[in-house]
Amino acid sequence: MKNTTAKQGDYVEVHLMKLIYEGILLESPETEKGIILLKLDNGYNIGFSKKDVLEIKVLKKAKVVEENLEIKKDSTKPNIAMIITGGTIASRLDSRTGGVHPLQNPEDLFKFYPELFEKVNVVKVEIPFMKASEDMDFKDWQKIARVAEKLLNDSNIKGIIITHGTDFLHYTSAALSFMLKNLNKPVVLTYSQRSIDRASSDANLNLQCSALVAISDIAEVCLVGHASSNDNYCYAIPGTKVRKLHSSKRDAFKVVNDKPFAKVFPDRIEIVSNYKTRDKNKVKLDLKFEEKVALVKIYPGQNADVVDYYLKNNYKGIVLEMSGLGHAPTSSSRNNWVRKIKEVIDKGLIVCAVSQCIYGRVDPLVYSNGREVLETGVIYLKDMLAETAFVKLGWVLGHEDWAKNKKIVEEKMLENVAGEFNDRLEE
Amino acid sequence: MKNTTAKQGDYVEVHLMKLIYEGILLESPETEKGIILLKLDNGYNIGFSKKDVLEIKVLKKAKVVEENLEIKKDSTKPNIAMIITGGTIASRLDSRTGGVHPLQNPEDLFKFYPELFEKVNVVKVEIPFMKASEDMDFKDWQKIARVAEKLLNDSNIKGIIITHGTDFLHYTSAALSFMLKNLNKPVVLTYSQRSIDRASSDANLNLQCSALVAISDIAEVCLVGHASSNDNYCYAIPGTKVRKLHSSKRDAFKVVNDKPFAKVFPDRIEIVSNYKTRDKNKVKLDLKFEEKVALVKIYPGQNADVVDYYLKNNYKGIVLEMSGLGHAPTSSSRNNWVRKIKEVIDKGLIVCAVSQCIYGRVDPLVYSNGREVLETGVIYLKDMLAETAFVKLGWVLGHEDWAKNKKIVEEKMLENVAGEFNDRLEE
Repeated sequence: MKNTTAKQGDYVEVHLMKLIYEGILLESPETEKGIILLKLDNGYNIGFSKKDVLEIKVLKKAKVVEENLEIKKDSTKPNIAMIITGGTIASRLDSRTGGVHPLQNPEDLFKFYPELFEKVNVVKVEIPFMKASEDMDFKDWQKIARVAEKLLNDSNIKGIIITHGTDFLHYTSAALSFMLKNLNKPVVLTYSQRSIDRASSDANLNLQCSALVAISDIAEVCLVGHASSNDNYCYAIPGTKVRKLHSSKRDAFKVVNDKPFAKVFPDRIEIVSNYKTRDKNKVKLDLKFEEKVALVKIYPGQNADVVDYYLKNNYKGIVLEMSGLGHAPTSSSRNNWVRKIKEVIDKGLIVCAVSQCIYGRVDPLVYSNGREVLETGVIYLKDMLAETAFVKLGWVLGHEDWAKNKKIVEEKMLENVAGEFNDRLEE
Repeated sequence: MKNTTAKQGDYVEVHLMKLIYEGILLESPETEKGIILLKLDNGYNIGFSKKDVLEIKVLKKAKVVEENLEIKKDSTKPNIAMIITGGTIASRLDSRTGGVHPLQNPEDLFKFYPELFEKVNVVKVEIPFMKASEDMDFKDWQKIARVAEKLLNDSNIKGIIITHGTDFLHYTSAALSFMLKNLNKPVVLTYSQRSIDRASSDANLNLQCSALVAISDIAEVCLVGHASSNDNYCYAIPGTKVRKLHSSKRDAFKVVNDKPFAKVFPDRIEIVSNYKTRDKNKVKLDLKFEEKVALVKIYPGQNADVVDYYLKNNYKGIVLEMSGLGHAPTSSSRNNWVRKIKEVIDKGLIVCAVSQCIYGRVDPLVYSNGREVLETGVIYLKDMLAETAFVKLGWVLGHEDWAKNKKIVEEKMLENVAGEFNDRLEE
């Protein structure tokens, strides 16, 4: 590789033996010193062995962010609060380390998301932790809920926005839907798939639309994000009916078995379906959660003995992602799941059924294979998403007074607590 | 309940205390004698306690199927063969038992699907077994492949249609894609979501379109089924890029991360993307399969120790459905999957990564959490579907000469054997 004057943060062109790539030059991670790391315009990082690199030309010097912008508070604008938990949206690329820096205060937010402040004052920013969402678990959901409760019960605040990593965002949205009782104001979860330093970032639109929903009448836990790969409007989707269905697209999150609450443009909201309106209630926390709950997807020929693992390890409940309308291999199969399910239910394990199809619902009455499973005592969760079912089962079994009575557990699992069932679902 | 003259098979109206339902009266199953069972027009069965039923009125007497139809063979039409394996499409409702009867010979098929015979002669019907697809495993895939090989190497037959249950159909289509080497003719898998006795049955269109593809130039393993909920055309979808994404809709099967081969109307085919054309090769079987392979979906807070279960039980490989671009909880989480994955890989378990997002691809290089997982030696399977990955890993590890060398396993898993990777996938 030739000598170069390029510095970290410069916009450069890397000439390879074979090809030319354009992007932002990053500093190589500590452990990969022989690597040139480049963030491409499409947002992906690409690494080259130094020995493969001929030359690095600077196309554009690194942009220096202005340091002393001022937030103008405007008493005619409604006040909102933000909870920052990590993820791409709450980060800016640090071109020196190739890593990300959290945005920790309103000034930081203003620097990167000035449009957010056009319609609202962000009067509080809380950061309970900074994590990738795949590193979160129920204790993190509880922490977010605690912070949210305080903000929601502050009469000075009209609604809250929670920024969050995308990977397991739909589990958190389900958890908050169950953990925040008597919800009085909008709780808006949002994200970005591409960080704000990138031309294609989805963060700005998502945040602008989130602000509109946070000051709206929609007193629901909802996820606000791109409705399509165009950068023109978002959907506000019920927190229990949303799933990440694309690994990288801006419209990764889709409503499943339901309608969004609303279409949200940067300057207006078009209501699509019914929602709970804001009121003067105080939010109450209902944080209980049973850690010993599992989610297991059934696949052809799977040995049913894996369920014994959960029983042996003192699990209290298990959600099975069954096939089609809620089927599992029967006695006609070499791996009799029906017998095993009956066995573990008789020993006290709570077993729930959802469909791995994602769309549609389980219905054990259509085929005899379904009726066989139903007879074991499995709780069929209709059109509930697998991810929501996992969260709900942990939440229900976390309540000791419910957990000790299977009948109450079944009643609670089948009660529509937070929109997790859509009774008007067609077909 | 009042006395009634209604007989099984009659089209009746059941008057409940509260409501009136219309449907086909079924005979109650042996174990549920106190139940009146009705097949509704929407295809679902509904059961009423006899004590809740006021009256049953006959709206239309049961249709008697003509018994002596003749199939006219026509030497100007191309010959195809069918393999019947069970599922809704190969069944007719038996109104006496509420169960289903298999369609076992060309005469039966002709009775129910006369349109199928407009363009082709069905010269052979093979029935290796009759099963719901959720009861199948790799041994069933091998049986189907063996029958298919014989038919495909019969110069009198232009292509084959395999009828199959829907629940795990996409696993079988992937398995046949790997097990049938040097494919020379079309292998068309099809299904119905609603049995032929129902007005809304999707079987006829699916079979007509399947026949067109079976005599076409598309020498691929593909699934042919409804493209939308309208009953007007089908898609022919690559067998490794298809997933059941709705529990009950007629267009339950969707192409994922790829394009269909073709749009198929009852009278014509519109080609959409490239395919392998028919040739004079002999098909060879490659049936090997390692049973000790698992598919595991990761969820928040999941205890990584479950992987030990697979190691202890002598599993050879595992496909992990990771979050987003291929992430798993790291050392920042209370459940360190990265450490556990490294541990089991070091002990010889093959670990592959796919995305539980379904759409898109895994890419461990974008975030540091992904790079942490990659360093453990996980094989990242790009845009491959989880279900296809499970089948492929079993197939690859079934080859002892490959399985004994991790480098070869990785090479084979990343080789595009049967269209399981789409290198032109955007974003």
